[in-house]
Amino acid sequence: MAAVTGFLYRHGANIIDLQQHSTDPEGGRFFMRLEFDAAGMDLPPEGLRAAFTEVARRFGMDWRIAYAERVKRTAILVSKADHALLELLWRWRRGELATEVTLVIGNHPDLAPYAREFGVPFFHVPVAEGGMAEAEAEMLRLLKGRADLVVLARYMRILSADFVGHFPNRIINIHHSFLPAFAGARPYHQAYARGVKIIGATAHYVTPELDAGPIIEQDVVRVSHRDGVRDLIEKGRDLERQVLARAVKWHLEDRILVYQNKTVVFA
Amino acid sequence: MAAVTGFLYRHGANIIDLQQHSTDPEGGRFFMRLEFDAAGMDLPPEGLRAAFTEVARRFGMDWRIAYAERVKRTAILVSKADHALLELLWRWRRGELATEVTLVIGNHPDLAPYAREFGVPFFHVPVAEGGMAEAEAEMLRLLKGRADLVVLARYMRILSADFVGHFPNRIINIHHSFLPAFAGARPYHQAYARGVKIIGATAHYVTPELDAGPIIEQDVVRVSHRDGVRDLIEKGRDLERQVLARAVKWHLEDRILVYQNKTVVFA
Amino acid sequence: MAAVTGFLYRHGANIIDLQQHSTDPEGGRFFMRLEFDAAGMDLPPEGLRAAFTEVARRFGMDWRIAYAERVKRTAILVSKADHALLELLWRWRRGELATEVTLVIGNHPDLAPYAREFGVPFFHVPVAEGGMAEAEAEMLRLLKGRADLVVLARYMRILSADFVGHFPNRIINIHHSFLPAFAGARPYHQAYARGVKIIGATAHYVTPELDAGPIIEQDVVRVSHRDGVRDLIEKGRDLERQVLARAVKWHLEDRILVYQNKTVVFA
Amino acid sequence: MAAVTGFLYRHGANIIDLQQHSTDPEGGRFFMRLEFDAAGMDLPPEGLRAAFTEVARRFGMDWRIAYAERVKRTAILVSKADHALLELLWRWRRGELATEVTLVIGNHPDLAPYAREFGVPFFHVPVAEGGMAEAEAEMLRLLKGRADLVVLARYMRILSADFVGHFPNRIINIHHSFLPAFAGARPYHQAYARGVKIIGATAHYVTPELDAGPIIEQDVVRVSHRDGVRDLIEKGRDLERQVLARAVKWHLEDRILVYQNKTVVFA
Repeated sequence: MAAVTGFLYRHGANIIDLQQHSTDPEGGRFFMRLEFDAAGMDLPPEGLRAAFTEVARRFGMDWRIAYAERVKRTAILVSKADHALLELLWRWRRGELATEVTLVIGNHPDLAPYAREFGVPFFHVPVAEGGMAEAEAEMLRLLKGRADLVVLARYMRILSADFVGHFPNRIINIHHSFLPAFAGARPYHQAYARGVKIIGATAHYVTPELDAGPIIEQDVVRVSHRDGVRDLIEKGRDLERQVLARAVKWHLEDRILVYQNKTVVFA
Repeated sequence: MAAVTGFLYRHGANIIDLQQHSTDPEGGRFFMRLEFDAAGMDLPPEGLRAAFTEVARRFGMDWRIAYAERVKRTAILVSKADHALLELLWRWRRGELATEVTLVIGNHPDLAPYAREFGVPFFHVPVAEGGMAEAEAEMLRLLKGRADLVVLARYMRILSADFVGHFPNRIINIHHSFLPAFAGARPYHQAYARGVKIIGATAHYVTPELDAGPIIEQDVVRVSHRDGVRDLIEKGRDLERQVLARAVKWHLEDRILVYQNKTVVFA
Repeated sequence: MAAVTGFLYRHGANIIDLQQHSTDPEGGRFFMRLEFDAAGMDLPPEGLRAAFTEVARRFGMDWRIAYAERVKRTAILVSKADHALLELLWRWRRGELATEVTLVIGNHPDLAPYAREFGVPFFHVPVAEGGMAEAEAEMLRLLKGRADLVVLARYMRILSADFVGHFPNRIINIHHSFLPAFAGARPYHQAYARGVKIIGATAHYVTPELDAGPIIEQDVVRVSHRDGVRDLIEKGRDLERQVLARAVKWHLEDRILVYQNKTVVFA
Repeated sequence: MAAVTGFLYRHGANIIDLQQHSTDPEGGRFFMRLEFDAAGMDLPPEGLRAAFTEVARRFGMDWRIAYAERVKRTAILVSKADHALLELLWRWRRGELATEVTLVIGNHPDLAPYAREFGVPFFHVPVAEGGMAEAEAEMLRLLKGRADLVVLARYMRILSADFVGHFPNRIINIHHSFLPAFAGARPYHQAYARGVKIIGATAHYVTPELDAGPIIEQDVVRVSHRDGVRDLIEKGRDLERQVLARAVKWHLEDRILVYQNKTVVFA
């Protein structure tokens, strides 16, 4: 902390926010996020990188600098459910999400009109029986150079390890259960069958193992014996929208660090 | 509904509360809980039962009448953790729980002083290596005639199917996770390892299958990367106390119906 | 209860849901909501009313029958903020709200495009300096015969007692605070100044007294010293959408009874 | 930040936790809490103070150093309600509260046995008609040298500005409502009359103006038309215990900074 803040101070940066976390006071892994105003610095971006490399080397840091004005590009993958997509597009239009939404891809064409209402190109990439590899190739072609972040807004197909490997910790999925409970298919039906009194939604980074990636955010809502599967789906929809939107926002603001399949969220 | 409320009306009962639930509007299973003041009735308790049997037979009802003044007897099983026990005893002392706490059994002697502070007999029934059957026999002897409800207030041993069979839907356990996530041992350690953002506690009826009985109540609390296992345990403790106390209260007030391993809670 | 359920039973109705509430077990006010399938009844709608009048007279009931297939008409009043309007229109489009949205009125023209995207006519009724009476007259003309419910979706003008009197318990407002805290203008600024740790939103029926009508629903979200007024506004927006949508849904499903400036919500 | 962390680094301290907050990125008030292990420092406590004074002077800091091993002394004031007192004593006994509870003072004698069960001296300081000044004098005498923190655990008398002045930002009160709603007497009755759907509890520092001091923590629970005043009181009790315990814990760990009648809580 002293080395980094001292470095920034000496070069004229104004620290706006600092958050840190240590897994263990003695000898644990140390995480830090600094937000600073570089306007008054005596170093240009590349000079900053070069100079900081020296500091980082001394402490063996993994580090990254992100410039707020270089907005990330977001692609959204969907199937038929509209709620998660609309929530993201609406927040984006209001200016709540610091991103450029570059395209929407659907394995069904249903949501094309909604994407277009917001001025976002929509691509229909259907998945034929046994044709996931082909569909993924087509999607990779579309995403190339257009996506720093891929959001699965209730995209109902399972992506291959190969596809996922193109976007390490850069694909966010919303799973409609309180993971690790009810991983896999039809979580609301599972929740109903088990008779839980609370249901949840989970936003996580996608890894090759299904529904097992680092959890970014979760939220829950109370249900009762009065709620049938349809009610769970309806209540869950509101959760999914909120949870996904928060996770995407934090990612876009570089607030999430991943370590050992867990996240440190400096929200 | 018409038959039951009409019957009560004709016999001079004053209905205080009625709650009902149907699993399906057409042909589903129908549940109803009626609370009524029998003071003005033209039937004594046994006459009421006999007369109602006629009504119930016509509709093929499963039914039960409980008299509020016949207070249920509660036995509490504990190990070393004091929080769940003390929460129950406090609430009981201030009149929140309509019961008589008849005894506390511990497989360790540690909590004896606390039980005695509240005037409740404490029995130490240790479990020797391989001696669970023996311990259960001793507990059954102690519980005989003294327990309409058995509460596992962080009792850390697994009870046999045989023991459980003596108290069908009358043993309440508090599990320190949001079931079905993290069933089994050391749920807070499991939760920490998985990196969840919310932890929970679950009160459920005990069935022979571990942590799989009908869920009565659940609650959750938000955690973050800052919380280590110790913090999860501390935060979880507060949840466990609240969740267990609610479940016990509802059971004592005959608000819980069990059907197909799920509960209908008329709270 | 016996009289009503017996009446319905005799005439062939199938009771789907019954909820009741008594302000006091002895001599209190009694409330009941019955949902029943009239398909098998031996009475047509008018005959049902006539026959039930007899039952109701005997017990001095205030009563009302609503037919689910006669969908209520909803008008929405807005100013410039889009979130509450869009939330309602989305939910309506996906079938969550049992209503016909007949028109949107704005004192500013900004939201006209959004109403039209959903196929709803938009009327711009500006309010000139001192011209509220005139604007209200114009709105009453537009609403005439087109509104069983008026929703103030962040409409930022205060309606007169006269206007309100045209729609008793049929105007729902969303107030952006946890009432009765922070009634009146700029509640988020008030909340920030007071340093509360939780903010809320309140949906209520509009009465002549500002922000003092019967509360239908409230919800809250945690905030901290890190949240400035802008953050409160952003967090609050999500609350407002959820709380207003729930209140409108319950109203449309005839789940709300008003008594002594309070609501009984049979949700 | 650079100056402080650099200073600590140079003198061999190991920073365990750092949290900071700025009311405004440019020219706002800056708050920071640093937790560090002084074991390896090259300065004794007094030397540390002297050396740091130099750093602090340069930046015009208000600052304070607290040593974790110098445990704060806590006095608890009560009336008749036992729940808040018992919660604190129980957590203290478990080691959750880093303090020494030196005494309990009651204006009624009712809770004396509970204090004694935990080995804490109890003093009965009754308040005669018009005798608050006298009672306060007696309490000040008892508290002298024995209280770094005074907790009002449902103490039902209003303390004078003079008494409060002896413990600036060192008296914590638990108010049984979601302030600023329902300040003053009988908040649950007020909440019931207003028909709110959520009730709350608020822990705050006591200032001369009633229920208007800096808010430390709040929490809420959902209620409905089914809940009478008695139910609100019972549900509220659980809130009060949790909220007060959190506020006291944070105070004892020096996590709360007060500024302009608001708190910054580095929890």
